[in-house]
Amino acid sequence: MKLVTIDAIPGGTAGAMVASGEILHLGRAAASGTIEAWLPPTVRGILLAGPEGLEVAHRLVRRVENMDANGQERLRRLGALTRLDATPLLAPVPDPRLILAAGRAYRSHVQEMGGGSPPHPTAFLKSPDSVTGPGARIPVSARTAQVDYEGELAVVFGRTCHGVAPEQALDHVAGYTIANDVSARDWMPGVLAACTAAEGRQSWETNIMGKQFPGFTPMGPVLATRDEVPDPSSLQLVTRLNGRVMQSASVGDLIHGIADTIAHFSQWYRFQPGDILLTGTPAGVGFGRDPQVFMRPGDTVEVEIGGIGVLSNDIAPA
Amino acid sequence: MKLVTIDAIPGGTAGAMVASGEILHLGRAAASGTIEAWLPPTVRGILLAGPEGLEVAHRLVRRVENMDANGQERLRRLGALTRLDATPLLAPVPDPRLILAAGRAYRSHVQEMGGGSPPHPTAFLKSPDSVTGPGARIPVSARTAQVDYEGELAVVFGRTCHGVAPEQALDHVAGYTIANDVSARDWMPGVLAACTAAEGRQSWETNIMGKQFPGFTPMGPVLATRDEVPDPSSLQLVTRLNGRVMQSASVGDLIHGIADTIAHFSQWYRFQPGDILLTGTPAGVGFGRDPQVFMRPGDTVEVEIGGIGVLSNDIAPA
Repeated sequence: MKLVTIDAIPGGTAGAMVASGEILHLGRAAASGTIEAWLPPTVRGILLAGPEGLEVAHRLVRRVENMDANGQERLRRLGALTRLDATPLLAPVPDPRLILAAGRAYRSHVQEMGGGSPPHPTAFLKSPDSVTGPGARIPVSARTAQVDYEGELAVVFGRTCHGVAPEQALDHVAGYTIANDVSARDWMPGVLAACTAAEGRQSWETNIMGKQFPGFTPMGPVLATRDEVPDPSSLQLVTRLNGRVMQSASVGDLIHGIADTIAHFSQWYRFQPGDILLTGTPAGVGFGRDPQVFMRPGDTVEVEIGGIGVLSNDIAPA
Repeated sequence: MKLVTIDAIPGGTAGAMVASGEILHLGRAAASGTIEAWLPPTVRGILLAGPEGLEVAHRLVRRVENMDANGQERLRRLGALTRLDATPLLAPVPDPRLILAAGRAYRSHVQEMGGGSPPHPTAFLKSPDSVTGPGARIPVSARTAQVDYEGELAVVFGRTCHGVAPEQALDHVAGYTIANDVSARDWMPGVLAACTAAEGRQSWETNIMGKQFPGFTPMGPVLATRDEVPDPSSLQLVTRLNGRVMQSASVGDLIHGIADTIAHFSQWYRFQPGDILLTGTPAGVGFGRDPQVFMRPGDTVEVEIGGIGVLSNDIAPA
């Protein structure tokens, strides 16, 4: 199943599902009496309802997909079934509480940025205010000239997760979406200035501040639930800048697998439904190229993960 | 004015104010018709309502404080006015979106931990799931033997704040509360393992993971609005462990003042109403003592800031 959040002005944001390749608007279908089931109005609400919430949502999707052409046409007339490419979406979870972002997670990216492979997963937190949706413009301050992309697979938690073993870690995952961990590489003061000076080079830790700007964490377009992604390590990730392939890798190339990474961080963090883990980016970022490539207003950046979709965003002045 | 959040089982959490030294329960007063005004039911909701929300709340407090003894007694009978020391409270903002925590903020603390004064404010993010309330027990995993206190003044934002000048920074502050940035000093893998190795010593950055445990950010008991704290630099902070004074400092000793710190971080972060800035801790933490002192189950830690109150928590096994 694929969950989305519709940018539903003026009714506010609304959780919805993909059915037969179209968007099934829960509220509109229910209001018309066509679909007689209640679900929380947001994706986070559906996740908080636990396995039961996802099961009800899944049942509704199957019901619509099994309708005859007349039934689906009726939903379309009601505005309860709309075209995927014509429905404005937000990030699947537009208001996450916690975004933990792994860094130095792919060996190929560690090599291009300099430094060795970390013995444990490493990560930092991103501001929830950095989240934006598929198709949204990424606003870039005139004060940075080094705005870089980082295509990533994002894990969305579905259950409270603290102190779990690797074997149980994936049971706490609701599903997966696509993220771009946008990074201003020239914003380096802050947390680690002293550390950077000691190391004498621009290390990955130093750009944490440059990842916190509003709009620097696009996510979407859909949250693909675990039943659609039985093995996340088999996913293929491709990032394109203005159509040119910049990153291409398998999630299986992660130094520490997703289950191990979740188990590791759950020693400290207590993840809740709707919390996000960005799993890190592979080689090919603009900063690691020769010559370096940075994004400018007018550029279009796309991150594609087979089985989930394409996250596309334009760069714009702030 | 002082805002609090009542731990109101089974009705859920509820925003409330201190009036004449007692807790004024908005919901109960309104339900009885005694107070005819509507306010959002949570402190974050009141803050999101902007200056108008705080002004309505303030007007209600004044009305109750100006009541005669009969009027106040009627509120007490309705359960709408209860004793401060007999009302279970949560953190004033029990569900913050963002907690930015300054480190190395007081010169005296930088000295005891080793290292020089940072040229800019430095900070890290804490998980919202680490928040707990006044009086709550701080659960300590058996896997750590170095749980330390850090008494701090906490800023609560009242307006969206991005790219502000120091002169305007405090206009975006709703008020202040007290926090304890509890830190497990022996949890050091994670983000900065490589950096630590390069520096060859345990630097302050390395304990960021050990600050993320559930319950490691007690806050409260009240949010004192700006009108009660015209000059935060004049506040005095004292931390006591089992009654013994461990930290005692003036907020005026901060290397970078609160307005400068807000302005600095607002270059990247966009703060929203209810977001929290922990302003850092002065000298006297257990890790910096000779011999070192750590907290154990059964201990009581208190952070007091004159004009705001006392934040008291007991340490307990996880």
